[in-house]
Amino acid sequence: MAGWRAADLIGRKRDGGALGEAELRWLVGAYLETLEGRSSAVSEAQMAAFLMAGVLRGFTEDEALALTWILVESGEVLDLSSLPGPTADKHSTGGVGDGTTLLVAPLLASAGVQLVKLSGRGLGHTGGTLDKLESIPGFRVDLEPGELLRVAAEVGCVVAAQTERLVPADKALYALRDVTGTVASTALIASSVMSKKLASGASVIVLDVKAGDGAFLPDATAAGELAELCVRIATGAGRACAALVTAMDQPLGTGIGNALEVAECVELLQEPPAGRLALIALELAAAALAMARGGSAAARESEREELVGRWERGEALEKLRAMVAAQGGDASVCDTPRKVLPRAPVVRAVPVGRAGVVTALPARAVGETAAVLGAGRARKDDPVDPAVGVQLHVEVGQAVEAGSPFVTVHARTDADAEAAAGRLLAVLDLGEDAVEPPPTLRRLVT
Amino acid sequence: MAGWRAADLIGRKRDGGALGEAELRWLVGAYLETLEGRSSAVSEAQMAAFLMAGVLRGFTEDEALALTWILVESGEVLDLSSLPGPTADKHSTGGVGDGTTLLVAPLLASAGVQLVKLSGRGLGHTGGTLDKLESIPGFRVDLEPGELLRVAAEVGCVVAAQTERLVPADKALYALRDVTGTVASTALIASSVMSKKLASGASVIVLDVKAGDGAFLPDATAAGELAELCVRIATGAGRACAALVTAMDQPLGTGIGNALEVAECVELLQEPPAGRLALIALELAAAALAMARGGSAAARESEREELVGRWERGEALEKLRAMVAAQGGDASVCDTPRKVLPRAPVVRAVPVGRAGVVTALPARAVGETAAVLGAGRARKDDPVDPAVGVQLHVEVGQAVEAGSPFVTVHARTDADAEAAAGRLLAVLDLGEDAVEPPPTLRRLVT
Repeated sequence: MAGWRAADLIGRKRDGGALGEAELRWLVGAYLETLEGRSSAVSEAQMAAFLMAGVLRGFTEDEALALTWILVESGEVLDLSSLPGPTADKHSTGGVGDGTTLLVAPLLASAGVQLVKLSGRGLGHTGGTLDKLESIPGFRVDLEPGELLRVAAEVGCVVAAQTERLVPADKALYALRDVTGTVASTALIASSVMSKKLASGASVIVLDVKAGDGAFLPDATAAGELAELCVRIATGAGRACAALVTAMDQPLGTGIGNALEVAECVELLQEPPAGRLALIALELAAAALAMARGGSAAARESEREELVGRWERGEALEKLRAMVAAQGGDASVCDTPRKVLPRAPVVRAVPVGRAGVVTALPARAVGETAAVLGAGRARKDDPVDPAVGVQLHVEVGQAVEAGSPFVTVHARTDADAEAAAGRLLAVLDLGEDAVEPPPTLRRLVT
Repeated sequence: MAGWRAADLIGRKRDGGALGEAELRWLVGAYLETLEGRSSAVSEAQMAAFLMAGVLRGFTEDEALALTWILVESGEVLDLSSLPGPTADKHSTGGVGDGTTLLVAPLLASAGVQLVKLSGRGLGHTGGTLDKLESIPGFRVDLEPGELLRVAAEVGCVVAAQTERLVPADKALYALRDVTGTVASTALIASSVMSKKLASGASVIVLDVKAGDGAFLPDATAAGELAELCVRIATGAGRACAALVTAMDQPLGTGIGNALEVAECVELLQEPPAGRLALIALELAAAALAMARGGSAAARESEREELVGRWERGEALEKLRAMVAAQGGDASVCDTPRKVLPRAPVVRAVPVGRAGVVTALPARAVGETAAVLGAGRARKDDPVDPAVGVQLHVEVGQAVEAGSPFVTVHARTDADAEAAAGRLLAVLDLGEDAVEPPPTLRRLVT
């Protein structure tokens, strides 16, 4: 294995230098071989030191590009060429009350774009997309490649669990980053995200990069930089890609918790689009549709209009119904979601304590409250409770009266509900004067 | 084991924060337990990431102090209280042609201060003090504590190998730092150096912190900061301590190589003190003597004068002779060193190619040349060749004629000698005008 020494490459990164593609490829390859017991050239300690040096010194764009391809090439790449129409994929950096995938997937399918989305398990505040879908009785997320392609071809959209065979090097690196404080690097995040998107094979990629207190990146500038790097990586790989930078200062949807989020999405699709969650889903889907038709994500007015029409005519809801059915779920969730989905034993309405205007409803605190109720997981193998969570009745900028509805807590016990209610009331910030709510869509990166 | 998580402590250091003593104690303790298979709370990868974050973000003085004590308390502490007089210890950060210990030890012993020095094996350009002493036939450096104290009491000085029982945590951390690019941290270096000095038990400590191209720290400012931190750590621990910052731009002595350095030191002690190596040894010994008598290292004129007298009367040479004999070595090395010490099969005189004034003779290149000849080791368990090395006949500032002596190369083969001669001629920098040699003693830190 060539004439490199891990200590030299670590030292170069520590001193602010950059590695070439061959050096990065050797480093990652030798690390994987070390994990498999086939080498000892790059130990976990050495890789951790290298990653920390990179987190603090930064990686160049060339390094991020190289790393992305090294991750992609470590495993299988999904071949979507057998699908009849254009293919799209969607990724969110994760927020609170973020059910956009459940809207974007059927919306794009209704317009003839096939969305094939492979997800990992959610970590943190609330469950991931897989956890949300699994709250639908019978829904299966573990699909073999053949079944995945069949659902995509027949329905037009499919959301399933990422297999072990996709980007195994990303998995190995992420497991190390997770325990060594080396997650927070724009280049490492971008290469991890984009390696999965490139390996998933879609020709159009839309990204939702969240900024705000409930997001992985609180800072909008940092979120913008991540969005830009991701788009450049995708474009360099010959994919059409655009990213929305969106606000995650308050929860995006009104439901926070797995079944509550599914119910909210179904109910949104049953009516004309309204609210911030519907808005962002439409913008993401319109951007993808515009690119799938060879246009720019920046000029997506007609696509947005078309998608609003499909939404209002119930076409998206029918696509969601077909996907749920094709993946083994109870399709009547699309008629009466709150009857079909699991319900928590304790449901407690919490009123607002005094009159005022909502000035803040911090997404992180709301998400953590839902997680404490059982909706999220701290460890990868923890179970989540599909039924519990928080249903919000207010948003930033809204005027409320004393005693008017604030939240409904869905909990396993009275004590849990009480604690959650207290925590939520404590973070609700009420002012005297009218507040202009900040824009949810902050920026488009193409 | 309390409520700490390695990832949280790593994250705090990564973000520029500081750890408390209890947190550091837990981190190091849990790491050692992990190495022993008794815990999994702090993996090698996590410790490596923490160390890299600390190298790039820095450690506070409180952290350095705490870490020093944590390292000291991980093992045994040498009890010197049975010795009759004041005790001293000496440490150099390592340079080329640096035989000061072989001079300082007998000088201090001649003045009634007992120097007990425990050394590690040298790594890098040339051998360490143990390697130099082991070039004397019969000399033993592996002494049991009882023998160590007996030699110290009877002779007044002893130089032996550090045992495994002293600062085991330092050993474990250094092994990790060595392969993860995390050596270069003032706080980590200071705590490592001072933990060994504190555990070695002497009440007076003198440090020789080298600055220059042949030193561990090329930059004089960085060397000064290391010196200051080391002195503060020692003073905080109730020891009298001073540090000299000395130049390591050219080799300190004229011999570079284990037997050559021993021979040089013996020959220096046979004559009145002269040259840069003798100067630095006298300054270090005078500083230690002044402190051992309750004074300040800054006011060491009378001690220097006293030590010059003892040197000139041969008292230091007699102490060296006694120490060599007490540690099993051939004491006639103090009479005819170049007959007693091993000699290389090839000894080649290399003349200067043209006339000029020596403007540079880079210590690192000279040291590496000696190492390539076999005098140094790249790995901890590599053997060193005691006989090989380089004898210099010029120094910076000296005017030379074409054909006058430059170096004598002591090598195993003609080819080795040829290569070394070429390399040394290539790095010898000759100018036209007179050059004022830079001061060897740059600064005293008390």
